[in-house]
Amino acid sequence: MFDVIAFDADDTLWHNETIYSLTQEKLKQLLAKYRDIEDIEGEIYQTERRNLQYFGYGIKSFTLSMIETAIELTNGEIQGREINQIINFAKEMLETPTQLLDDVAETVATLAQSHTLMIITKGDLFDQETKIAQSGLADYFTYVEIVSEKTPGVYRGLLERYGLSPNRFLMIGNSLRSDVLPVIELGGRAVHVPYSLTWAHEIVTGPEAQAASYFELEKMSQLPALLADLNHKG
Amino acid sequence: MFDVIAFDADDTLWHNETIYSLTQEKLKQLLAKYRDIEDIEGEIYQTERRNLQYFGYGIKSFTLSMIETAIELTNGEIQGREINQIINFAKEMLETPTQLLDDVAETVATLAQSHTLMIITKGDLFDQETKIAQSGLADYFTYVEIVSEKTPGVYRGLLERYGLSPNRFLMIGNSLRSDVLPVIELGGRAVHVPYSLTWAHEIVTGPEAQAASYFELEKMSQLPALLADLNHKG
Repeated sequence: MFDVIAFDADDTLWHNETIYSLTQEKLKQLLAKYRDIEDIEGEIYQTERRNLQYFGYGIKSFTLSMIETAIELTNGEIQGREINQIINFAKEMLETPTQLLDDVAETVATLAQSHTLMIITKGDLFDQETKIAQSGLADYFTYVEIVSEKTPGVYRGLLERYGLSPNRFLMIGNSLRSDVLPVIELGGRAVHVPYSLTWAHEIVTGPEAQAASYFELEKMSQLPALLADLNHKG
Repeated sequence: MFDVIAFDADDTLWHNETIYSLTQEKLKQLLAKYRDIEDIEGEIYQTERRNLQYFGYGIKSFTLSMIETAIELTNGEIQGREINQIINFAKEMLETPTQLLDDVAETVATLAQSHTLMIITKGDLFDQETKIAQSGLADYFTYVEIVSEKTPGVYRGLLERYGLSPNRFLMIGNSLRSDVLPVIELGGRAVHVPYSLTWAHEIVTGPEAQAASYFELEKMSQLPALLADLNHKG
């Protein structure tokens, strides 16, 4: 029924948002001697949104936005040595071993026996390649595409490039905004497997999310059964 | 004679190293009140080399390395506001309009009439996409590949992916290390068109460079004549 099954990577195959969340907590502690910041996540996100046009996604962008936010929140009083600590936070993030989500290894191995699998992930080329290599999953995926945005236009380009028709393409991911809605818009199929944390930027609410027709699974291990069911119905 | 002619982008199609060089000069001036730094370029390069395993290439990596270098060189005395200025340098770099090198627009337009053209560029996905879009050249290139490294293995992967045989593949670029030598190693052909500035990381000297057999052109406008000559000889 599907010529290609594509997976998002961050927070779909492996943990990601958790690492950002821990780092924001570290920044909060670092700044505590200057002032108490209730919503450090919200403060950083405001900077990130403003910087998205310059820096795009990924750990390096996040780090530059953390530094900018720290300078702002301390009225420029933060010390050079402390900013060096923020750069070290980034290096620690980049050194964190890739940790697969539950059931991912088994599910991917099972599906690879019967389907052509692909990764479509957004973010920094260098980070994403490192994580794919570390994940131990690389051999199961015939194609890997690292893109700077996940818009309907980007998905359309990929489908054309691989000669795929949308109704025979299935995308699986944790983000309605990036993995599900744009694929549905093109006439593709999509499965939403939520992650415990969602970055503010990826949150979609309201009629847009409710109107779209996609599958929702609680965990990755339910995917083979869903596919069997779809194949059965034809 | 060639199924695909591929071009490097930074310092081959458009100016790049000049922008980095100007920014390093700005950093030197910013730090002048703390101390006089003779070789700011060398200082930053040392940090960049150390950070390459974490951050890879591109303006964001360069910026994080500039910040780290500035903190080091001032023994942590640099102020938050000054570090904010370094982040603003990065934004200015990213806002600099893409400026094509001499003869590039005409040469690319001419060759696109008779050949399939490709861009193979190293660096940050987001930066490179922005520059390609801004360049006005996108329509001439059938394929665009943004890679995190330009090793023989990466070129081999690309040739396989596009079903190209090395001896019918020509790569054009300003870097012996990234554009010429790895392609020659695979049995491909390469043209070296030097840029006025070369980043220390890309410099190759000694027998490795001398032994390889590639074409050297002074400027891009000489490329159509070289191709005509090669086609004539068969």
